[in-house]
Amino acid sequence: MLEYQPVDASFRALAEPTRRVIVERLSAGPASVSELARPLEISLAAVVQHIQLLEETGLVATEKVGRTRTCRLRPEGLDALADWVAERRRFIERRYDRLAALLDEDEADQPEKKT
Amino acid sequence: MLEYQPVDASFRALAEPTRRVIVERLSAGPASVSELARPLEISLAAVVQHIQLLEETGLVATEKVGRTRTCRLRPEGLDALADWVAERRRFIERRYDRLAALLDEDEADQPEKKT
Repeated sequence: MLEYQPVDASFRALAEPTRRVIVERLSAGPASVSELARPLEISLAAVVQHIQLLEETGLVATEKVGRTRTCRLRPEGLDALADWVAERRRFIERRYDRLAALLDEDEADQPEKKT
Repeated sequence: MLEYQPVDASFRALAEPTRRVIVERLSAGPASVSELARPLEISLAAVVQHIQLLEETGLVATEKVGRTRTCRLRPEGLDALADWVAERRRFIERRYDRLAALLDEDEADQPEKKT
């Protein structure tokens, strides 16, 4: 019944406050895993798990050089989410436009145009 | 450590695929609880629970007339979510702009302009 949507993974990933904090931090610039972990009161292993999930979702990309794994935000990873919200709003606006058109017709006394 | 953000409730609410289907349906226009329940393969009680949560989150408003409860989407309920995504993108763009400015300065060989 419920189709899989790419936006599903984004919503699930960002419904977790710690992962949202990581994404917020990375929107200010790339950071190493330990830099990301510092302000978070959870184990480094837990941070790594969160980053892995964000990576699978396409929100974050990581690169390991030597012993340091650097994480950066993939702005295109936010697209599915932004599109979903924009689509809901577009639908609502279209309805308001149709409603306004119907009210105009009503005023002009042309009920036969009503759909 | 983790501050409560209004966007938290929106992400949690919409991380559930059934609730997203309800919001998608309502973006096409108001619907009664039973209309919303029809295409969903879950109990009416479960649908009512999802709607209650969406109502608490401010995404949906409901009104009961007689025995029928009509649900409608509150477009302003999507604002926190849209703002969060837009803010992340704004941060990223600002970084790119700063990077481009630095590269320009580098080319023009005017390091004293660097901020």
